[in-house]
Amino acid sequence: MAGIGLDIMGGDYAPQVVLEGCLQALPRLADDTQLYLFGPLDILEGFFHVSDRNAGDRIRMVHAPEVISMHAPPVKALQQKRNSSIRVGMKYLAAGEIDSLASAGHSGALMVAAMQILGTVEGIDRPCAVTAFPQKSNHAHLLLDVGINHEVKPDQLAQFAILGSIYSKLIYGIDNPRVGLLNIGSEPGKGNTLYQNAFRILESHKAINFIGNLEARDFYDGIADVSVCDGFTGNIFLKQAEGMYRLLKDKGVEHPFLDQFNYEKYGGTPILGLKRNVVLGHGASSSLAIENMVLTAEKLAQIELATNIENFTSKV
Amino acid sequence: MAGIGLDIMGGDYAPQVVLEGCLQALPRLADDTQLYLFGPLDILEGFFHVSDRNAGDRIRMVHAPEVISMHAPPVKALQQKRNSSIRVGMKYLAAGEIDSLASAGHSGALMVAAMQILGTVEGIDRPCAVTAFPQKSNHAHLLLDVGINHEVKPDQLAQFAILGSIYSKLIYGIDNPRVGLLNIGSEPGKGNTLYQNAFRILESHKAINFIGNLEARDFYDGIADVSVCDGFTGNIFLKQAEGMYRLLKDKGVEHPFLDQFNYEKYGGTPILGLKRNVVLGHGASSSLAIENMVLTAEKLAQIELATNIENFTSKV
Repeated sequence: MAGIGLDIMGGDYAPQVVLEGCLQALPRLADDTQLYLFGPLDILEGFFHVSDRNAGDRIRMVHAPEVISMHAPPVKALQQKRNSSIRVGMKYLAAGEIDSLASAGHSGALMVAAMQILGTVEGIDRPCAVTAFPQKSNHAHLLLDVGINHEVKPDQLAQFAILGSIYSKLIYGIDNPRVGLLNIGSEPGKGNTLYQNAFRILESHKAINFIGNLEARDFYDGIADVSVCDGFTGNIFLKQAEGMYRLLKDKGVEHPFLDQFNYEKYGGTPILGLKRNVVLGHGASSSLAIENMVLTAEKLAQIELATNIENFTSKV
Repeated sequence: MAGIGLDIMGGDYAPQVVLEGCLQALPRLADDTQLYLFGPLDILEGFFHVSDRNAGDRIRMVHAPEVISMHAPPVKALQQKRNSSIRVGMKYLAAGEIDSLASAGHSGALMVAAMQILGTVEGIDRPCAVTAFPQKSNHAHLLLDVGINHEVKPDQLAQFAILGSIYSKLIYGIDNPRVGLLNIGSEPGKGNTLYQNAFRILESHKAINFIGNLEARDFYDGIADVSVCDGFTGNIFLKQAEGMYRLLKDKGVEHPFLDQFNYEKYGGTPILGLKRNVVLGHGASSSLAIENMVLTAEKLAQIELATNIENFTSKV
């Protein structure tokens, strides 16, 4: 039985669209999965009463009356709003009342709360965000970090490689995932100082099946299962795919494969390296994106992601 | 009358494909444009004789018997091979014998030769590479630097902004091009230290029509004419678009608009900030890409790009 927490005040279209997405997710969740909704009780009660879509004993409402707005300075906002949906949800997660927490809210505040209340597992300095991209192979190509750490050290890229390898194994059953270093050339020695140093660390790391530098143009060719980069580069990479997808749709390009680039289908970015399972949603999440974010959060609980990562990293 | 130089030994499929691309370009060039082909004379004569496609007085062959291989260390290779096609072509360009030079060869060697033999214009520390991307608007969105400078300083991003603005005006006739800073969020203060500092410089620069940070997901929305970033980020951005285009084509997605992402149609990347006009081609250039690279080189000569940049920057 899994308990999934959802911050109903997180996202540009919260709370309405978040609550709709949560209702859409419900029939797709396992029978014994419970949803914990964090937000002001009047909003929660109002929504379920007015819409007459009370989902009974599968939904628990947790009163969290304060809201952290999208552009607030995170550390200060968390200090001042101790009853915000993000902070209350994170407390439930830390206490083991729920197995994973999902939010499409203020990503900075979510990460600060996660670091303050949960912390990272042994051997991991910083958590990182992972996204799955379609490619020629049947399974997706994981890229991390896609946005949390804008400045990283070379050995942190090796930590991302370990996190990504564990996740690839748990999600896709890949035994010895091939790890690439996203770079501007495929030969050793390419890239700036950070990437040159990271290459050397990755190359000699026994727990990583390193295949070398991977150029962005070869990213979709099915030659790696996991790729690592700093969070600035990864975020640009991720959002460009989203931008290009949006442009092509806008210009009338229609094809089932193209829709694999629809971020709404991925619905949220798992955060790896924390002591508990956290999923970060897209700020502009639609109800479909929220629905899939909830399913991602359930998946992380089912595969016991954080526990598995902790077990592995404590042995490396 | 323009003289266009082409390094026939540059590119993964040189010289055969480069020479074919050159012949394809010929009927599309202005009547009084002359092509200067730099390479070993026996190859040049062999090609034009055997194929019986002597293009008469529009083609001049310049003997440059030495070849710089794709993975040679650039500085050393240029010192040792003083009669390489890249170096001889650059000498012709510096002497004003030709108006622009195009090469799909060793990009590092081309840039070192350009810096040693041509140098940059006043006020510009480093040359940078510009690429045009399709977007919602009728004209393309220029991004620079897409790969030359892997580590830059904040004021160099402002220099890129000036170079891009001049190019946008010359190519598309845009009077006061809107300049964005490619970043991981749209609000001021986003990004790493480099981007935060660059934001402040761009914001207060009188010669730049700065519109603020531009997220990669909004890149194609037609809200900026020119965007700047460091060459590492820009190269990843450019090559991801190429990778995504290749994947979609491989999966059977067909649409005329998608083909605007076909790099072969752009054929070469103009290098801005040098004292003379240089175009850098894709290493894996097909004959179509070479054809378009030659046309780009002609275009730069016609708009007198380097001269116009020098005139502008000397006044800023």
